[in-house]
Amino acid sequence: MKDIVIFSGSAHQTFANQICEHLGTRVSPVRLSRFSNDCLQAQLLTNVRQRDVYIIQPLVPRTQEHLMELLLMIDAARGASAAQITAVIPHYSYARSDKKDASRISLGGRLVADLLVTAGVSRVLTMQLHSPQVQGFFSCPVDQLTALGVLADHFRATDLSNGVVVSPDLGNAKNATQFARLLGLPVAAGSKRRLADDRVVVDSIVGDVTGRHAIVLDDEIATGGSILEITQRLRDFGVLSVTVACTHGLFAGRAVERLRANDFIDNVVATDTVPPPTGWPELTTISVAPLFAEAIGRIHQGRSVSKLFQGVDPVYAPPTAPAGLF
Amino acid sequence: MKDIVIFSGSAHQTFANQICEHLGTRVSPVRLSRFSNDCLQAQLLTNVRQRDVYIIQPLVPRTQEHLMELLLMIDAARGASAAQITAVIPHYSYARSDKKDASRISLGGRLVADLLVTAGVSRVLTMQLHSPQVQGFFSCPVDQLTALGVLADHFRATDLSNGVVVSPDLGNAKNATQFARLLGLPVAAGSKRRLADDRVVVDSIVGDVTGRHAIVLDDEIATGGSILEITQRLRDFGVLSVTVACTHGLFAGRAVERLRANDFIDNVVATDTVPPPTGWPELTTISVAPLFAEAIGRIHQGRSVSKLFQGVDPVYAPPTAPAGLF
Amino acid sequence: MKDIVIFSGSAHQTFANQICEHLGTRVSPVRLSRFSNDCLQAQLLTNVRQRDVYIIQPLVPRTQEHLMELLLMIDAARGASAAQITAVIPHYSYARSDKKDASRISLGGRLVADLLVTAGVSRVLTMQLHSPQVQGFFSCPVDQLTALGVLADHFRATDLSNGVVVSPDLGNAKNATQFARLLGLPVAAGSKRRLADDRVVVDSIVGDVTGRHAIVLDDEIATGGSILEITQRLRDFGVLSVTVACTHGLFAGRAVERLRANDFIDNVVATDTVPPPTGWPELTTISVAPLFAEAIGRIHQGRSVSKLFQGVDPVYAPPTAPAGLF
Amino acid sequence: MKDIVIFSGSAHQTFANQICEHLGTRVSPVRLSRFSNDCLQAQLLTNVRQRDVYIIQPLVPRTQEHLMELLLMIDAARGASAAQITAVIPHYSYARSDKKDASRISLGGRLVADLLVTAGVSRVLTMQLHSPQVQGFFSCPVDQLTALGVLADHFRATDLSNGVVVSPDLGNAKNATQFARLLGLPVAAGSKRRLADDRVVVDSIVGDVTGRHAIVLDDEIATGGSILEITQRLRDFGVLSVTVACTHGLFAGRAVERLRANDFIDNVVATDTVPPPTGWPELTTISVAPLFAEAIGRIHQGRSVSKLFQGVDPVYAPPTAPAGLF
Amino acid sequence: MKDIVIFSGSAHQTFANQICEHLGTRVSPVRLSRFSNDCLQAQLLTNVRQRDVYIIQPLVPRTQEHLMELLLMIDAARGASAAQITAVIPHYSYARSDKKDASRISLGGRLVADLLVTAGVSRVLTMQLHSPQVQGFFSCPVDQLTALGVLADHFRATDLSNGVVVSPDLGNAKNATQFARLLGLPVAAGSKRRLADDRVVVDSIVGDVTGRHAIVLDDEIATGGSILEITQRLRDFGVLSVTVACTHGLFAGRAVERLRANDFIDNVVATDTVPPPTGWPELTTISVAPLFAEAIGRIHQGRSVSKLFQGVDPVYAPPTAPAGLF
Amino acid sequence: MKDIVIFSGSAHQTFANQICEHLGTRVSPVRLSRFSNDCLQAQLLTNVRQRDVYIIQPLVPRTQEHLMELLLMIDAARGASAAQITAVIPHYSYARSDKKDASRISLGGRLVADLLVTAGVSRVLTMQLHSPQVQGFFSCPVDQLTALGVLADHFRATDLSNGVVVSPDLGNAKNATQFARLLGLPVAAGSKRRLADDRVVVDSIVGDVTGRHAIVLDDEIATGGSILEITQRLRDFGVLSVTVACTHGLFAGRAVERLRANDFIDNVVATDTVPPPTGWPELTTISVAPLFAEAIGRIHQGRSVSKLFQGVDPVYAPPTAPAGLF
Repeated sequence: MKDIVIFSGSAHQTFANQICEHLGTRVSPVRLSRFSNDCLQAQLLTNVRQRDVYIIQPLVPRTQEHLMELLLMIDAARGASAAQITAVIPHYSYARSDKKDASRISLGGRLVADLLVTAGVSRVLTMQLHSPQVQGFFSCPVDQLTALGVLADHFRATDLSNGVVVSPDLGNAKNATQFARLLGLPVAAGSKRRLADDRVVVDSIVGDVTGRHAIVLDDEIATGGSILEITQRLRDFGVLSVTVACTHGLFAGRAVERLRANDFIDNVVATDTVPPPTGWPELTTISVAPLFAEAIGRIHQGRSVSKLFQGVDPVYAPPTAPAGLF
Repeated sequence: MKDIVIFSGSAHQTFANQICEHLGTRVSPVRLSRFSNDCLQAQLLTNVRQRDVYIIQPLVPRTQEHLMELLLMIDAARGASAAQITAVIPHYSYARSDKKDASRISLGGRLVADLLVTAGVSRVLTMQLHSPQVQGFFSCPVDQLTALGVLADHFRATDLSNGVVVSPDLGNAKNATQFARLLGLPVAAGSKRRLADDRVVVDSIVGDVTGRHAIVLDDEIATGGSILEITQRLRDFGVLSVTVACTHGLFAGRAVERLRANDFIDNVVATDTVPPPTGWPELTTISVAPLFAEAIGRIHQGRSVSKLFQGVDPVYAPPTAPAGLF
Repeated sequence: MKDIVIFSGSAHQTFANQICEHLGTRVSPVRLSRFSNDCLQAQLLTNVRQRDVYIIQPLVPRTQEHLMELLLMIDAARGASAAQITAVIPHYSYARSDKKDASRISLGGRLVADLLVTAGVSRVLTMQLHSPQVQGFFSCPVDQLTALGVLADHFRATDLSNGVVVSPDLGNAKNATQFARLLGLPVAAGSKRRLADDRVVVDSIVGDVTGRHAIVLDDEIATGGSILEITQRLRDFGVLSVTVACTHGLFAGRAVERLRANDFIDNVVATDTVPPPTGWPELTTISVAPLFAEAIGRIHQGRSVSKLFQGVDPVYAPPTAPAGLF
Repeated sequence: MKDIVIFSGSAHQTFANQICEHLGTRVSPVRLSRFSNDCLQAQLLTNVRQRDVYIIQPLVPRTQEHLMELLLMIDAARGASAAQITAVIPHYSYARSDKKDASRISLGGRLVADLLVTAGVSRVLTMQLHSPQVQGFFSCPVDQLTALGVLADHFRATDLSNGVVVSPDLGNAKNATQFARLLGLPVAAGSKRRLADDRVVVDSIVGDVTGRHAIVLDDEIATGGSILEITQRLRDFGVLSVTVACTHGLFAGRAVERLRANDFIDNVVATDTVPPPTGWPELTTISVAPLFAEAIGRIHQGRSVSKLFQGVDPVYAPPTAPAGLF
Repeated sequence: MKDIVIFSGSAHQTFANQICEHLGTRVSPVRLSRFSNDCLQAQLLTNVRQRDVYIIQPLVPRTQEHLMELLLMIDAARGASAAQITAVIPHYSYARSDKKDASRISLGGRLVADLLVTAGVSRVLTMQLHSPQVQGFFSCPVDQLTALGVLADHFRATDLSNGVVVSPDLGNAKNATQFARLLGLPVAAGSKRRLADDRVVVDSIVGDVTGRHAIVLDDEIATGGSILEITQRLRDFGVLSVTVACTHGLFAGRAVERLRANDFIDNVVATDTVPPPTGWPELTTISVAPLFAEAIGRIHQGRSVSKLFQGVDPVYAPPTAPAGLF
Repeated sequence: MKDIVIFSGSAHQTFANQICEHLGTRVSPVRLSRFSNDCLQAQLLTNVRQRDVYIIQPLVPRTQEHLMELLLMIDAARGASAAQITAVIPHYSYARSDKKDASRISLGGRLVADLLVTAGVSRVLTMQLHSPQVQGFFSCPVDQLTALGVLADHFRATDLSNGVVVSPDLGNAKNATQFARLLGLPVAAGSKRRLADDRVVVDSIVGDVTGRHAIVLDDEIATGGSILEITQRLRDFGVLSVTVACTHGLFAGRAVERLRANDFIDNVVATDTVPPPTGWPELTTISVAPLFAEAIGRIHQGRSVSKLFQGVDPVYAPPTAPAGLF
């Protein structure tokens, strides 16, 4: 793959190496250093002139450090006359800050999108944003991938009899519905809703779950609180067992400890957009590195990325016959 | 109110007049004309030099005409050295286009936000965006009002015994929950979900509605399809009667005819962010012009707009004691 | 012609098809749809990643609708990582709004140019702008074509004996002078001038027209008012017959009816930058689609577009020996 | 006049002093210096923080030096936290470069407008641009003054009996027509037209001039070539005498010598937007400094500038009753 | 002081409090929070509409966290319609990254300046940038203060007999020279120069230091390495004692330990632009909070900030009589 | 070398011709003209569509004229759809204005960088900026070359025995140190320092020069004042002879006369980034045209420019093994 140069920040070098392996290339060297006053600096150690540069860095803790590394690497690439710079951000965590739910609050999801463009990014490649509207925060093109296909492949190899896909939150049940369709299973959802003052007003499971094996699907697991709650509720409703699946497995705080300790949860499955937690051998990690590699290859060759997801995500389905406007 | 100049496009001049009445001023004259080749032109007929200019125009059908009028009026104000230009867009309909739910699709909600800034807008004042993330599409400040308070005032004057607030879609039930809290009523929601291939997988009412009088709340009613569906479902579940409330009452297509014809719907209540439909004397219209007038007054005087909604919307609640970061 | 993708808005699909035929390719499919609240949406149904995209759309009535379609298609192409986006606008009608001829008036010609750049356009290809200065309104490159060559080819095949080229307005006589040179005919011009209060102060024909067959040339015909006036004047001055030629034949309002009814006008010739009016079989339409096709081909191959007009327009003439500055 | 600070570049300090005299203030000191490598530097010697700054500099020869001075002064004001910066450019000479009349040619009128905005200008105040479209080249507000009123005042004090106003070029006869209206005189115009190869095809005087005293009006006189030509033509047509009036009297090259030598020209009248030529005591200079002073005062106080020209220029006339759009 | 609102990030709240005390106001509350995925969020708890907002935050360790806090607070202020936003950055540490001293290296000093402007800053108030050129990295106005005056005031109250001011690096001796002038002392400088391969080629003390008491002045002390080296060199050259003075006392790594342990160093004096290190009671801290308070007051009132430093820094000296350009 | 087009302004056509000769191509013709009102205009006489364009123009006296020429040529290239535009500015003289060393002073080095980007430049290729920080003034990529290698090649062919490299100013001794290393000679430096009031406080030569032949190295020689001073000082310190070397030999004012007249100066060596002065046959000019040609070739082919300077400048040295960040 000529004229392509791939760098990695320090957030998740394993992931970058795996992408490059799939592409038959290597991660190009970069020197990340720190001044004695704690300021960061990035130096690209490979010529990038007129090349297409890809910089791989999920925004995972220590998030601010990794964000600044990414911005500085983009700045270095632009200053060195790169032709195009694609920020590959497998987990764009600032998407969580996507609305003004209080007066005079910052909007991190939009601000960071603007900072990336200021630093010089030409395009962003990411996976499963917290809400689909976040794509509109970027003034550069964004290619958003989905992990549902590879997660479905994993589950299809297991015994799915008597299964049901469950979304913890009915409001975001679109992914679960789509996932259930890929597995040929029914779908259900928790309808728990929190008021501002933390009183829960609606609390039930929509859809039939009694006597079934549940696959709980979420996009991101941070402290694991919502997962533990829905698990308890499913138990109350007579579910036989729970398996958890998610795209971004941060497992922050005491999440590992709490999820491992729950004996009703059979298994937890996550992708590797985020470095896996340590001390959790039972965690099943499904790599999306091949997917990112394929997407990078397609971007580089000017081929369609959406084609990659035909049959997986209706968003990427071939449109029906073009209808006229009037 | 000195140094303030308020113009109105042709979309909803009644609304503009009412705002000005509340402010004790008058709409300033503007000449909107059309070249013989169908291009539009705007001329402001009042001096705006170093003034704060407010231009009132909801994006209602004929939407493209009204958008272009608005852009041209902003352009004229900027060219005439206005100090600040606030676009007052009671209904920002392009918010409906807020995500890329298909490959290579336009993102109108973001594009129109950018067009407004290009034309020269300094700030946008609007009400109830289709999704809260749309605020992040604007690179200028946005003040977003809510009609829930005035709608609640209206219903508090009616018999609310045995009532329940119902959201047609559980995914967007946040507004209904908040509205129910203002009325001291329970909340319920339809959980109907559509797949891409139009098969509905989950279909029920979450929350107890049997034997109750339902107030169905939605943010926008266009063709009225969702309202009619939830009404039918509520009937099946033993609801006694349905009243409909919404912020933006477009009532497009055959909506008026269909809603009037439905004998299970007692009453429809909408605000006047959108010009009311003709031929529907039974429609109850609650004016939000006083709210917009108050907001414009506060913006002009540099007072807090969010204070206006304390107790109405938790977003605008006074925050609890400032907690430190670490 | 590889790596080129051509789309058409709904304004003039015949023209787009003809261009593509000349290029040996096809118009790529696009889905233009309308939300129930009248907002437009565009979806490109062909991969455009890293491709050179051309979007064909004259700004003809319904002008605002067509402009918004064009902006949304550009937005979709940019979001889908097109390499370069050329807006092909055969008739840029907003050029009519090119100066502030009243206080606090909008400047649509400049505003629309800025909107196009905001949406993401890289270049504009157009024909015969209302005034040559309008090219300076764009902050992106503009390639401006002229129809005078193909119009001259048409007339050279007719009997030109005893002919004279007439410009309705001496102020814009440059095009007529150039056209006359191509045909080897003399030139004349109406010198009618309107005051703001509509009193005409100078009113005559400059140049010798008596006993001649006149070819009246204008860049755009909207309502046809000026054409009918100059025709009457030429009749007064003893002209034998009048043929009308123009680039952009809008024929708005009652233009068709009035021009057809005038028995002193032998023939009307227009190009197809604008969809031809219905119910006017005698109208002669000269296609400039081959010219646009050739220009697109040259742009795509990085060849000179101005070479295409050598000998037609002195603007594109090969410059004489490069003279030094000092 | 508080909080206003006025600077002058080196191009026309007399003019700046006169403006300040009318405003009852003084030109604030600035230090313009030159590095030994010929680079310029500007230092403002008065505090401008949060002040409205006006910088007076016509773009007259040595044009490049004066342009760079202006840009550097704007840069210094912006860096010193000025609130608003108005470039007062009595003669914006780069407006002559307003169209692409040859392939691959620069467009100085637009480029210089962009450079001014880049340097930090908030607004431009100028007089009589070469073509009215040039106003659209600026992305900041432009206030364009006209000298026709003060020139008319001058001529009204002379014997106008049997007079006629003549425009050298019928294409630009709008100003002459308006001037004639102010003086209550008829108007005429030369219709000389040059082809690219310098053959003149139309050559006559439109309007009745025989036996009259002509006032030839032009916006700018550089070498005086056009003036001398029209004078000769008017002589041929039996004019009794010629007086010349213009806004921008550059009188470059041998203009002074040639105009003085022409015994058919009675008098030459120009304004002082440009420093007057030396060695021409007979030249009548009408100051527009009071007009600029009045405009600056109005801008500073947020009053209408266009009001200043009511009755002078129809552009600034009070519009008739506001007509609706539809 | 009305209409002024001052916030502080978490980097140095003591400093912010002191500034506000001098201004007779209080730091306004802000809520800084952290999502479970480590992303930061800022909420301003005071109305800022149409107010002048000052946000105080030095870029000290944990530098990336503090930078992101600052950017989010600016974003929140802009979104809440602040009139002007001044980032008060007492120590702009990224100025250390001010040149490309290796291929393809990032330029943090410029990048961070651009990020601040992207977030919405109107102006920056800072002290003693690492090199004076860094001011040119900002596209917004920068007010740069100097601590030399207050440091000189401190030393004037001590016994200065037989003293000499020493710069560790002759290349940056400008500040030392100026400081010596303020104290009426001679100046000297180390001329140590490092090659890229760390061989030192020139190594001496320029100026007479033998038998004198040295005041070593530096702008920033991070690890203290340079200070310890020059101290050793001065000892070799027969200096009697060393006192150290600096503006930004970071004292990172083992700096406190090493400087305290050095028995030849009598005293270390630093300002409080940076939070003082713990466990160093002997450190003399001179507050520049009054200086920042005075500067903020002057900025707010539109008075000259440079006047504040007349007699201290020749940069701020009143210029001599304005000389003309030619 | 296909698809490359090289133009030259009028500042230094010989240099442009030599670059093209090395590249085996020719300078493409451009027409630079001047309106009668002194405004400049540029027309490129070769097709540049989709081509990589290089425009060669050092900013030498008449600096403002040459800057404007350059801006207009860039504007013309952008308007004609050039793919990339590289401004080749062998001497970027405005770098001298790189800091605010007085209140409210312009910052020409940054302003001109912004003007170039506004005109449409994609990249700048230059040599030896006055201070390395100036590179950070540009928001586009900058490739900065060094002449030290070719100057060293010249001196290596001479008798270097008993030589010493001397920098006139210790503050900028980095270049001299590096040059000495290339020649295998020791280094010394003048330590002369000027106060604001022109009193010199430190005045000596650092390093051993007595009885040696000095090569005085400076980056730019304008009036030659500093060179003459250091020469006098070296004479005082027992130097045997002085040879002068510099990158940018402007030799402005009386420099030629004064340097020729100084009998202690054996020889002056300069490069040809600047047109050589007339009437100085003894001046040795070393061409850096091959270096610029090689750099242009490498840029055009996407090869590393920094590789060109390995072994010459430590900045371009291959970095040692990439060290991780933490």
